[in-house]
Amino acid sequence: MKVGIINVTGYAGMELVRLLANHPEAKLVSVTGRSEAGKKLGQFLPTFIDVPLTITPDLEGSPDVVFSALPHKASAEACAPLVNKGVRVIDISADFRLKDPAEYPRWYDFNHPSPQLLKESVYGLTEIHRNEVAGARLVANPGCYPTGAILALAPAVKEGIISGDIIVDSKSGVSGAGRSLSMSTHFSEVNENVFAYSIDGHRHLPEITQELHDVNPKLKLNLTFLTHLIPMTRGIFSSCYAPIIDGKLPSGAAGKKKVQEIYRAYYKDMPFVAVTHVPPQTKQTLGNNMCLVYPTIDERTNRLMVFSCIDNLVKGAAGQAIQNMNLMFKLPEDMGLKAIAVYP
Amino acid sequence: MKVGIINVTGYAGMELVRLLANHPEAKLVSVTGRSEAGKKLGQFLPTFIDVPLTITPDLEGSPDVVFSALPHKASAEACAPLVNKGVRVIDISADFRLKDPAEYPRWYDFNHPSPQLLKESVYGLTEIHRNEVAGARLVANPGCYPTGAILALAPAVKEGIISGDIIVDSKSGVSGAGRSLSMSTHFSEVNENVFAYSIDGHRHLPEITQELHDVNPKLKLNLTFLTHLIPMTRGIFSSCYAPIIDGKLPSGAAGKKKVQEIYRAYYKDMPFVAVTHVPPQTKQTLGNNMCLVYPTIDERTNRLMVFSCIDNLVKGAAGQAIQNMNLMFKLPEDMGLKAIAVYP
Amino acid sequence: MKVGIINVTGYAGMELVRLLANHPEAKLVSVTGRSEAGKKLGQFLPTFIDVPLTITPDLEGSPDVVFSALPHKASAEACAPLVNKGVRVIDISADFRLKDPAEYPRWYDFNHPSPQLLKESVYGLTEIHRNEVAGARLVANPGCYPTGAILALAPAVKEGIISGDIIVDSKSGVSGAGRSLSMSTHFSEVNENVFAYSIDGHRHLPEITQELHDVNPKLKLNLTFLTHLIPMTRGIFSSCYAPIIDGKLPSGAAGKKKVQEIYRAYYKDMPFVAVTHVPPQTKQTLGNNMCLVYPTIDERTNRLMVFSCIDNLVKGAAGQAIQNMNLMFKLPEDMGLKAIAVYP
Amino acid sequence: MKVGIINVTGYAGMELVRLLANHPEAKLVSVTGRSEAGKKLGQFLPTFIDVPLTITPDLEGSPDVVFSALPHKASAEACAPLVNKGVRVIDISADFRLKDPAEYPRWYDFNHPSPQLLKESVYGLTEIHRNEVAGARLVANPGCYPTGAILALAPAVKEGIISGDIIVDSKSGVSGAGRSLSMSTHFSEVNENVFAYSIDGHRHLPEITQELHDVNPKLKLNLTFLTHLIPMTRGIFSSCYAPIIDGKLPSGAAGKKKVQEIYRAYYKDMPFVAVTHVPPQTKQTLGNNMCLVYPTIDERTNRLMVFSCIDNLVKGAAGQAIQNMNLMFKLPEDMGLKAIAVYP
Repeated sequence: MKVGIINVTGYAGMELVRLLANHPEAKLVSVTGRSEAGKKLGQFLPTFIDVPLTITPDLEGSPDVVFSALPHKASAEACAPLVNKGVRVIDISADFRLKDPAEYPRWYDFNHPSPQLLKESVYGLTEIHRNEVAGARLVANPGCYPTGAILALAPAVKEGIISGDIIVDSKSGVSGAGRSLSMSTHFSEVNENVFAYSIDGHRHLPEITQELHDVNPKLKLNLTFLTHLIPMTRGIFSSCYAPIIDGKLPSGAAGKKKVQEIYRAYYKDMPFVAVTHVPPQTKQTLGNNMCLVYPTIDERTNRLMVFSCIDNLVKGAAGQAIQNMNLMFKLPEDMGLKAIAVYP
Repeated sequence: MKVGIINVTGYAGMELVRLLANHPEAKLVSVTGRSEAGKKLGQFLPTFIDVPLTITPDLEGSPDVVFSALPHKASAEACAPLVNKGVRVIDISADFRLKDPAEYPRWYDFNHPSPQLLKESVYGLTEIHRNEVAGARLVANPGCYPTGAILALAPAVKEGIISGDIIVDSKSGVSGAGRSLSMSTHFSEVNENVFAYSIDGHRHLPEITQELHDVNPKLKLNLTFLTHLIPMTRGIFSSCYAPIIDGKLPSGAAGKKKVQEIYRAYYKDMPFVAVTHVPPQTKQTLGNNMCLVYPTIDERTNRLMVFSCIDNLVKGAAGQAIQNMNLMFKLPEDMGLKAIAVYP
Repeated sequence: MKVGIINVTGYAGMELVRLLANHPEAKLVSVTGRSEAGKKLGQFLPTFIDVPLTITPDLEGSPDVVFSALPHKASAEACAPLVNKGVRVIDISADFRLKDPAEYPRWYDFNHPSPQLLKESVYGLTEIHRNEVAGARLVANPGCYPTGAILALAPAVKEGIISGDIIVDSKSGVSGAGRSLSMSTHFSEVNENVFAYSIDGHRHLPEITQELHDVNPKLKLNLTFLTHLIPMTRGIFSSCYAPIIDGKLPSGAAGKKKVQEIYRAYYKDMPFVAVTHVPPQTKQTLGNNMCLVYPTIDERTNRLMVFSCIDNLVKGAAGQAIQNMNLMFKLPEDMGLKAIAVYP
Repeated sequence: MKVGIINVTGYAGMELVRLLANHPEAKLVSVTGRSEAGKKLGQFLPTFIDVPLTITPDLEGSPDVVFSALPHKASAEACAPLVNKGVRVIDISADFRLKDPAEYPRWYDFNHPSPQLLKESVYGLTEIHRNEVAGARLVANPGCYPTGAILALAPAVKEGIISGDIIVDSKSGVSGAGRSLSMSTHFSEVNENVFAYSIDGHRHLPEITQELHDVNPKLKLNLTFLTHLIPMTRGIFSSCYAPIIDGKLPSGAAGKKKVQEIYRAYYKDMPFVAVTHVPPQTKQTLGNNMCLVYPTIDERTNRLMVFSCIDNLVKGAAGQAIQNMNLMFKLPEDMGLKAIAVYP
């Protein structure tokens, strides 16, 4: 099918081009970008020298499916008319992720222009909403942090083995902050450094709670989510902690075995979540669409600990978007997404 | 006074040389190191070109105080006879940190050779044991992680505002793993990567619980401590989470203000702990002896969150050792340790 | 065809697995590795979880073509019997690169065990020896540095526009030093650092001079080649300088244009060398098989300056090896190698 | 004496504050900075929490000596009136480095407002102009690249052992590009990357040629200077290559020994240049004022190769400025500058 990308000049847009170039069924026909309009893709980024497209101000070529990589608010405005015209849309921004319109002024400082589309849009964490994605006109591609956090926690939440007193401590590479310049992405400031940010509440928090609530509405969530920036380009490592409810798991090694089984059962037949036997590392996902999940138990405190790793630009953005596109067009879920991680 | 360093060839030993070179009262008279014995310090490490000492197999020059930077077990064996001879000893290894001899076989795989010295030794987290350090013959210099974690938590534990359900999630630069070669410190493996390690229990856990128990014996600790390696050389960032006991703090901004006051009062007149007004970064401690602590409240969940930053080789090792030496010899606590962090 | 890899546990061997997994015609049937024999590939490296092979001590499965990623000397010993048995061999070590057997004791400290195969082997810098590669039984895959240096210089050397007073100043990521542990690949030593090494002569020098001599035997080479290690994992940037022979190029902008034309003509129809219009960056080749070359002129001094970028593990090792395999088996040269670089 | 800093908010200005805090004779009385005026230094940068100064729009407190860390052009305008009022001035910008006023429109795009001061100003490469610095009213502190390049080459140029066909290939950390935001200092773009820049001529070239000409006016210079950005924060490594004039040095090891002697004689009694016995590394200068220089010979080609390492913000900017201040005020040259490099 014919594919368009709105705002190709950010990291998510660029990553879509890279990944779609390997896709046997998707044909990229149009890429937009106001600031670089008129340039060939290969002039904008030399790695795209063999992609024969010119950046245009507006979509061209009647695509069957459009990825929007616009910033929030602008994305909602661009996506709505496309959906209404019958184009399938996958929005990489946050604009259709939160079901409650009241969350937008609270977290994103704008009133949602299309609350009716909020009802229809499907939260595109593929492993959780596989069936709805397949039939969706509008998919809200998840945030990078929520992808790692929700996949780390969903099986335990679903199974009811933990209480809602959850801590998610995430460590992200700098590309998650995008291509816009800022002091906190300036090399000399962020290299050889680590710090917490958005301490009063990161915008990705409501996605996480919305989706975990959806997985198990009976669980009373009391979740702290904290983000850190570390000196690497790609990758998010999420460390999740939650008390195991007494009696829900056997003690000792049997408990660890049981929790691995719960996770393996949950992610059975899902090509892009691997429940690992050893603690994973973000580098093991560099450039590919995998989410590695490792659940274990802190026996001294009877807490569940789950670690997840993703490449924030792939499973956390462009890769998952293509995974959703595959489902929407009845293609094999992993089409074009089978690359092994670049290691080391 | 005359100073000796046992095992100068590891990172802690090297850092002692660097810092002592600026110290107006300490005169380094002897540095040992089996593998490099016979070399001048400047041949071993060119940055020491102006330090006129030769590495010897054994201590020479009758030092008044000796820093041991040996690995555990070897350090206990080397320190005991020195203490018995009347030399003041500051042990940077773990060998005199844990009061209960039974912890050594459990965590370090050896039976302690000098359990009587365990009773006498002082845990040299200066801010907590200032007075005992001043009179000590033998100081057990704290581990790098415990330094950051305990300083982050002690005021809240002391004041009784949190329950013992504490999570400490620490992120460390690679120099904390020392100078010994291993696959997990090999540049190509650890660069552009982050992962958790020692998941079944890091050796620094019993130090943290021992000392927090000491700060407030009534608090029932149920503490999870998890360590991560991130791609930078120096620095430890610890993110600590604990539920605030209902009614202990006012809600909203007033609670945040109150917790800052509690921390500022606790660290009043302590030159090397700064309670910051803004979230700190590890780079702000690069090369100096500061511990930056930032307490705040996650209002949605009523959890205390405290972040601390140190340079693992300075406040987490050599710098704190010199801070202890200063107290032991009735010198100003900050003598030789006033450098501003190297930023950026 | 069926493919085997000898010594899969080094970075070149691992990269072969990653790249071959995408190759539509190559079927990996055997991977060897003494130290990890008996492990599944996915146990050795989690990113290989979906590659259904077990590491064995010796080759199995009657491969049609074998890549040897053994260290030098061991590789010659392993390759010779395979060639004699009729297996096509691509040797990633240096053992069949130098035509003069006397170079081996000089640079590699051993006497070559199969000097007759040295005569037959083809130096597999594909762009230079395309035709010989196609018919070769034994291809000597070039070193990483020579790949970048020779491709940067060959067109100018061929065309006779420069004198032989050439300087090649190369900057390499750390993975070029391999997976073996050493102090100069220890993260804390090499991070935030840059230095020159092998100052008295790097082993890759004789390859460079042998091949440039072959390109233009009339040029009297007086070439200095110096290597530097910089704190990144992958990539080699080579800066090459040489005096332009008076009268060989027009002055000013016309000269720059002319030299671009010479380079474009030389690399016409070669899929893996791109002569760029703007100065290239190593990151633009991360994970793919491209060599980016940018020739220009320092007008003040009338020197040619050429910069080249490669990923040392792809075009500098495993990728080029597969490129050679494609030619040897009459497959499209770029089969399995079309990935766009991972950027950023 | 009383010291002022104009434009404290860039990296050079910040580094002056850090280094001056250790200086026993200098008292910082005024720091200016338009964008951050009104903030305490500790609010601007938390590492300055103990420096009791507020950033002001204009100089205050009648300093005896002023460091200008303004951008070029603005610096000339700010410095001239100070000099005329009798304040000693050390200008860290390029505005008084080039003796020929015609160079300013050519390289810096402005006509010099004070050509008469150009005649008077002293190029503050201390090791070269020690005596003039001592008596100067206005010192032009050298650029970071020229500091490393000139110190690497001056002894050989002075002694007449090399021809003028010199290549200087420099590799710089990113902090040399300053604190202003740009795509080429954006973490995700520059991390895991290396590239050449300012290929048509870097602004520091005329400084290098001016000063080397001054060292030996008879040498006909034909010098190529090329700069590269590498993924680290601090440090410049310069690799310099030049043909040795036939007969000027003995061959073999004797030549290498001789060139070391020439360099050691030249830098005799200079505290901040160390001629090393082994190839140096930039990390060996991190945070301190040393320039490490290692001259050797490429015996195959009879070329001199010299490597130099500096911390671009210290010997390449703020440290050298203080070294000059010390001389101007008849203080020991190394006062306040004796710190050992932070390693690792």
